[in-house]
Amino acid sequence: MATIKEIADRLGVSISTVSKGLNGATDVSIELRQTILDTAVEMGYVTKRMKKEEHRKLCLFIENMKYEAAGDFGYDIVLGFRQAAFRDNWRVEVLPVTPGFQAQEKYDTFMLKNGYSGAFLVGFALQDPWMEQLQDTGIATALFDNFVWKNPNVAYIGTDSFEGIDTAILHLQELGHKKIAFLNGSLHSMITECRQEAFYDSMEAHGLKVDPEMVANGYYVAESAKDFVPAFVERGATAIVCGNDLLAYGVLKECERLHKRVPEDISVIGFDDLPMSAVTAPPLTTIRQERAELGKCGYMALHSLMNHVSISKTLLRPAFIKRKSTAKAVDR
Amino acid sequence: MATIKEIADRLGVSISTVSKGLNGATDVSIELRQTILDTAVEMGYVTKRMKKEEHRKLCLFIENMKYEAAGDFGYDIVLGFRQAAFRDNWRVEVLPVTPGFQAQEKYDTFMLKNGYSGAFLVGFALQDPWMEQLQDTGIATALFDNFVWKNPNVAYIGTDSFEGIDTAILHLQELGHKKIAFLNGSLHSMITECRQEAFYDSMEAHGLKVDPEMVANGYYVAESAKDFVPAFVERGATAIVCGNDLLAYGVLKECERLHKRVPEDISVIGFDDLPMSAVTAPPLTTIRQERAELGKCGYMALHSLMNHVSISKTLLRPAFIKRKSTAKAVDR
Repeated sequence: MATIKEIADRLGVSISTVSKGLNGATDVSIELRQTILDTAVEMGYVTKRMKKEEHRKLCLFIENMKYEAAGDFGYDIVLGFRQAAFRDNWRVEVLPVTPGFQAQEKYDTFMLKNGYSGAFLVGFALQDPWMEQLQDTGIATALFDNFVWKNPNVAYIGTDSFEGIDTAILHLQELGHKKIAFLNGSLHSMITECRQEAFYDSMEAHGLKVDPEMVANGYYVAESAKDFVPAFVERGATAIVCGNDLLAYGVLKECERLHKRVPEDISVIGFDDLPMSAVTAPPLTTIRQERAELGKCGYMALHSLMNHVSISKTLLRPAFIKRKSTAKAVDR
Repeated sequence: MATIKEIADRLGVSISTVSKGLNGATDVSIELRQTILDTAVEMGYVTKRMKKEEHRKLCLFIENMKYEAAGDFGYDIVLGFRQAAFRDNWRVEVLPVTPGFQAQEKYDTFMLKNGYSGAFLVGFALQDPWMEQLQDTGIATALFDNFVWKNPNVAYIGTDSFEGIDTAILHLQELGHKKIAFLNGSLHSMITECRQEAFYDSMEAHGLKVDPEMVANGYYVAESAKDFVPAFVERGATAIVCGNDLLAYGVLKECERLHKRVPEDISVIGFDDLPMSAVTAPPLTTIRQERAELGKCGYMALHSLMNHVSISKTLLRPAFIKRKSTAKAVDR
């Protein structure tokens, strides 16, 4: 647990300034106070107030997703959520879960028994036991990348996949690519299905033909690439769009093994813009999700639900990040 | 312009309490302070601070929509937006516009010349001159019921029409209705098109057949009903779903003229839940939009855009309000 002195050192301000910021003194500017609070959350500082008010707490359930290191996809989502919740004096507990854990106890029961006022669920799969229970839950629940139809207590937060994939396809079309492969994660997730539909829609919208043998579902890990890239190359793909950056890292590696140069022979596009994507060889062209903002939106939606304002969905725009892994198509 | 005394009288508190609330004194509770501020906005009180800081201002452009009386559709949207903006010290100017006005000057030019930091556009039609310009605007702009593809400076706020219409169709199906008519507004609006698509999708999803002669587009005013209801009745409609409450009021009147009882002979459902819908004869079953919350969401989205967080869309859930204008279908 961080001390006030450690926060002061990190920010280069005095201990008394940090102390004032944490206590809401008015002689610290709003911006500095916010920075102090955000840093305190990031460094794991716990105020006396938070220790006392244990009844005001939210849970962030996380599944199928790494979040503990700064380069992990979930890291900024969790941090953004905790920072935003902290501003309203909520204590946040982060709880990694599995389908087995969900099968043991009903969602509502678990929430009530543990005194959580609301939850943010991140990385859940469509067939997870709790997903079905969310259709009727009376507890304020925000979902990252999952949608529940007609329940006014549940909100969906995410990035607009259609716009993201369309920007990637348009970019490749402008570079002259026609044989475009799509390597996606496992279909048991709403967002995978969204991106796959977006790929088909976008190819059609830009007058490009999809080769069904060049659309594949592995898992959202680099190792999946080797199961599909050889066949894509065999069929003459000049570009591979990936469902996330981890898959794209695997594609880069696999292209190297097959002696295909990126981007000269094959263009590669990721999705997410993880920190590492700026330093791959070559640096990865990708579709950025603003993960810290998604975490904050998760809290804002949850806050609305807890105040009986039924947010149905909040989507952020993706940003297209052009780096060095895409180039003009070469006729093969 | 309201005085502090008028605000105090309305709330039943002392003048000094109102004064403290307006000035952010800490011996007034957060909740009371918020109520005082909201009431001040509603009653048109202008603080000294607002008079001074004329440079911090937003514009709410409104078109095709009544908003000046408490029963008007736009009233709570405008009020919710102004209340939320006021909390962040913004001054809001409400400007009714026409296509002719838009044709005279470009959107960005008008915004810059008048010193607005951002805008909320309410009630715009698809063919409005400014709608096309919004595809490239660099100015933070929130749209009520309109969507602009791929511009990170523009956000869409609205109510989920698909869920609303589907709830209405499901309700009618459960009452045994099969011949369901849909009376909608003019097609030159995104939200009209959304609701029409929702009607077709939902009828199909529930195994009901759409009679194309029982889907009609008038205008969003009661007077439109007389142009279509006789034909609906002629073709055997047992229920009429309307694109807004004003149309439903017209349908009620027209049914009376045709000696059809509502709900015994014909069920009628509106959309919006205007204040008057609780007191029509019979009281109207309808799909509620939380208009004050939509206004607040409009401000929150605009606030995000002004801070370079690209909200793409925020949708609220509709609520189904069951009153007395729907009943079991009678075989005819």
